[in-house]
Amino acid sequence: MGKTEITAEPGIPQIVTEREFEAPRDLVFRAYTDPDLIVRWLGPRDLTMRWDRHEPRDGGRWRYVSVDPAGHEHGFHGVFHGAPSVDGGIVQTFEYEGVPGHVALETVTFTEADGRTLVRSVSGFQSVEDRDGMIASGAEYGVRESSERLEELLADLQGR
Amino acid sequence: MGKTEITAEPGIPQIVTEREFEAPRDLVFRAYTDPDLIVRWLGPRDLTMRWDRHEPRDGGRWRYVSVDPAGHEHGFHGVFHGAPSVDGGIVQTFEYEGVPGHVALETVTFTEADGRTLVRSVSGFQSVEDRDGMIASGAEYGVRESSERLEELLADLQGR
Repeated sequence: MGKTEITAEPGIPQIVTEREFEAPRDLVFRAYTDPDLIVRWLGPRDLTMRWDRHEPRDGGRWRYVSVDPAGHEHGFHGVFHGAPSVDGGIVQTFEYEGVPGHVALETVTFTEADGRTLVRSVSGFQSVEDRDGMIASGAEYGVRESSERLEELLADLQGR
Repeated sequence: MGKTEITAEPGIPQIVTEREFEAPRDLVFRAYTDPDLIVRWLGPRDLTMRWDRHEPRDGGRWRYVSVDPAGHEHGFHGVFHGAPSVDGGIVQTFEYEGVPGHVALETVTFTEADGRTLVRSVSGFQSVEDRDGMIASGAEYGVRESSERLEELLADLQGR
């Protein structure tokens, strides 16, 4: 099983995550861009993900809502810079509606080698304080659990 | 006359610029968001700016073309995250088409005090290399000359 590497260097307003998946990159890309698949892996297991909007084109908007066991809703939204593509990856803005006015730029790239796909994600924040706030909110836990769920989904989609 | 402060710390993928203008912030905001005004100050004096697209709304796209004295065209484009507003500022992505695939997130805020307006701009790049490439391309010169031209425009608009 792959391992998720999360890098958040002191003083640098970025979070970089990397993980290799046992799947061709077309399939991994589909898991990142098909809303019906995204809701099956994005976020911690105890939350339910609901897509509200998904417009995968230049200037298209996206929004999803994460519902916790108590029924509280947490909204996230952003816009796509360029159309997502296997080769060019996904470039999108990201804002958590619980703390409005703090925006990040997310870049996700997909690199295949020997039938495995390395997914690299760079989240650039407007300040180190914003980055540290995101980490303090428990984002690392969410990222790790999401990666595990994605690995399980990819195995399922490949009939393993 | 105000002075433009440009900060680009080693190892941090950001450029922060600040400058105070002798004008109320509504007017400064208009200079930043009305294409007819933008073309009068954005960019170095020896280039001609031409707006190609300007959709100031959430997910709206913008594109401008800078034409040098030899007639070469340099395109830039991006998308707006949220609608630009005096209070919330402007949050937009930015890509220079001469070096495609490198995207920055720009945040411009307007703060008024005593009839003067502080404009603060934070450009967050995907990597320090991208940031350094932008500086090497002569961006600092462009920023300083743009600020001077904006100051002149604001004086003109106020009949000074």
